[in-house]
Amino acid sequence: MNASIITIGDEILIGQILDTNSTYLAAELNKLGIKVLRAIAISDTEEAIIQTLNLSLSDSDIVLITGGLGPTKDDITKHALARFFNSKMIRHQPTLEKIEKRLTHLGVKLSEINRAQADVPEKCEIFKNNSGSAPGMLFRQGSSIVVAMPGVPYEMKDIMQSDVIPHIKENYELPARIHKTFLTVGVAESTLSDRLENYELQLPENFSLAYLPSPSRVRLRLSAFATNATELKNSFEFQSTKLSNELGNDLYGYNDDTLEQVVGNMLRKNALTIATAESCTGGNIAQIITSVPGASDYFLGGVVAYSNEIKEEILSVSEEDLKKYGAVSREVVEQMANNVKKLMKSDFGVATSGIAGPTGGTEEKPVGTVWIAVASPKRTLALKFNLGNNRERTVLRSTVAALNIVRKEINNLAEKTVNKV
Amino acid sequence: MNASIITIGDEILIGQILDTNSTYLAAELNKLGIKVLRAIAISDTEEAIIQTLNLSLSDSDIVLITGGLGPTKDDITKHALARFFNSKMIRHQPTLEKIEKRLTHLGVKLSEINRAQADVPEKCEIFKNNSGSAPGMLFRQGSSIVVAMPGVPYEMKDIMQSDVIPHIKENYELPARIHKTFLTVGVAESTLSDRLENYELQLPENFSLAYLPSPSRVRLRLSAFATNATELKNSFEFQSTKLSNELGNDLYGYNDDTLEQVVGNMLRKNALTIATAESCTGGNIAQIITSVPGASDYFLGGVVAYSNEIKEEILSVSEEDLKKYGAVSREVVEQMANNVKKLMKSDFGVATSGIAGPTGGTEEKPVGTVWIAVASPKRTLALKFNLGNNRERTVLRSTVAALNIVRKEINNLAEKTVNKV
Repeated sequence: MNASIITIGDEILIGQILDTNSTYLAAELNKLGIKVLRAIAISDTEEAIIQTLNLSLSDSDIVLITGGLGPTKDDITKHALARFFNSKMIRHQPTLEKIEKRLTHLGVKLSEINRAQADVPEKCEIFKNNSGSAPGMLFRQGSSIVVAMPGVPYEMKDIMQSDVIPHIKENYELPARIHKTFLTVGVAESTLSDRLENYELQLPENFSLAYLPSPSRVRLRLSAFATNATELKNSFEFQSTKLSNELGNDLYGYNDDTLEQVVGNMLRKNALTIATAESCTGGNIAQIITSVPGASDYFLGGVVAYSNEIKEEILSVSEEDLKKYGAVSREVVEQMANNVKKLMKSDFGVATSGIAGPTGGTEEKPVGTVWIAVASPKRTLALKFNLGNNRERTVLRSTVAALNIVRKEINNLAEKTVNKV
Repeated sequence: MNASIITIGDEILIGQILDTNSTYLAAELNKLGIKVLRAIAISDTEEAIIQTLNLSLSDSDIVLITGGLGPTKDDITKHALARFFNSKMIRHQPTLEKIEKRLTHLGVKLSEINRAQADVPEKCEIFKNNSGSAPGMLFRQGSSIVVAMPGVPYEMKDIMQSDVIPHIKENYELPARIHKTFLTVGVAESTLSDRLENYELQLPENFSLAYLPSPSRVRLRLSAFATNATELKNSFEFQSTKLSNELGNDLYGYNDDTLEQVVGNMLRKNALTIATAESCTGGNIAQIITSVPGASDYFLGGVVAYSNEIKEEILSVSEEDLKKYGAVSREVVEQMANNVKKLMKSDFGVATSGIAGPTGGTEEKPVGTVWIAVASPKRTLALKFNLGNNRERTVLRSTVAALNIVRKEINNLAEKTVNKV
């Protein structure tokens, strides 16, 4: 089963916006087990549309089109489709009524331009647009289908989820497919790949494992397909558990989980609170912790101690130690973590001090040197990292590393509590 | 002058990554005055590559290809290009030497896979890759050119800037073109559009103005082309000054400037320092200020005061006022700004307190209500905003609004100083 994706409009061809629609459609088709042969962006001229439809229908069962259906445009897509499928245009009454109702509700007087959005080629099936004016349209040629959708991402996604994907599932014989993403942190892709060599070798032929790396994190996507859905579910469950066990404590979550959510949930569940003392990360750890709704349940506050004076005066770091060891040192970062914990009366204190660059590095402490400390109710752990010479990435990697130490320390705490019981 | 862009590789067709390369190439070609007819992503099979090359060369003078040159792949792109241009493969000595030198330096032993990266079709000109192994390759067909580049974004951009763009400028007659982006903050797109109506009407026919909105900011791109470069330069200068005057104090910079850089430079130039006291923005203002290299020249530190206890104990906000007016109030945010300024001995204090949501809103203070205060050496200004019900956008918009108030208050300060002289 093959597909082509067509994006119509000049915004992409002048480099003004990224083509996120094609990426979304490709991911959705891939999940269904449909191979995408090409994704092509063209301008809204009838010539380009017809040329690209001919090309796409030469080898694709499914052609998905987005864009070119806006009211201010010349509606060229609809007319090109009408000409291609040899159809006249008609005014679609249910769509017209929907547009009238929507605009009247917004207090807008209907113009002919608004009404014309209900014009569609006669030879198509209509997919209702619940969040906008232009409906989706399905055309058939032999056993192939062409679906045109508006380019506004949430309107397009809405039509895909409520109509196009169900239509494809109903009308085509697709293999049963399962995907699950395993989220790891703090382990390099090559190390993981070595560790999982035997796991990968024993995977049945209908399984595949993809590595999706990002700074300090590697996502592993386990996919499988089969004709028998029940059998697939069982073998997937088996391989999934096996992979989770292989990954152990480096696995922090699945699918759309984020590290900050996972750590937040662990804190809430254990009725623990946290406070931050940041130097090189400049507030990024606090910001990422508070990006999770409800973070006020466990996050009390933080200090961004950029200058040494602030480290001394607000975080009570010893002036002597600052002089003796420098701000980027185990001694200073441990005091920062311990003292912010005391100051804010929290259970955990997390602190960073490093050289984000591009300047400020020395031979002994090059750019990218970062000390991270986490003070827990049981102990204070400080670790040194070398995170490279890109300022933005160093801040991001420090943040991820800090959250990961907190995650492991909460686990340690829980384990110890269990052991005691 | 027409162009096509081809991206080779499965990552885009399975929806794993966004095609940022095509967007970059489209923007660069557009700046040169070259029309992009299509951008097409295909998988790395010889059949797809040859089909797409035929299509592209049927109507394009310039074809830019990225991807499919990696060492672990089958190097299918190079072989497909060799077949298409009827050329044999040769080992390119200067590239081989570069690869040997690079890998030896990294302590890696050269394998045949590494050496094969120096294999190129004989009928091409080589563009050196300064940041990776696979070189760029230029092929000719009649007056058209095909350029293949690696898919790694920074390698591709490097080859584009140092070789491909200069080659195009030298070998094709392009219209003279000038672009300048005007950066505004705090004004809605529709308001700007009303205000600039007369300006746009008086623009000569060879000028255009594009609106590029993002949260709380609107970028305006003024473009012009002409055959006479000197004349164009003068008229562009004239229109550019006129537009800057129209935008007045809402204009914060040009082209790639960022608001945090602009504010940082203003602080440094006036030998002023700043400190932050954040509630709803959770450290985001400190984080964005410190994202600029050298921010330690003017940023002393900050407090993230998420809980009321921290507001009272560290920022000395009156317990009575917190009870009487609530944390999201003029009274509290003013005290936060004033007191962090005192605490950190800075010239400016900036504070936020708001309801980022999704919960915590009331009828009187709905989700999205944010108070922002800026304490300057002269006065404390507090303003209330309604920033909508998306948590992430509210934090971003609050941050932009806060930095913009700081920018205006530094301007006020400078003006007053001048007036006094």
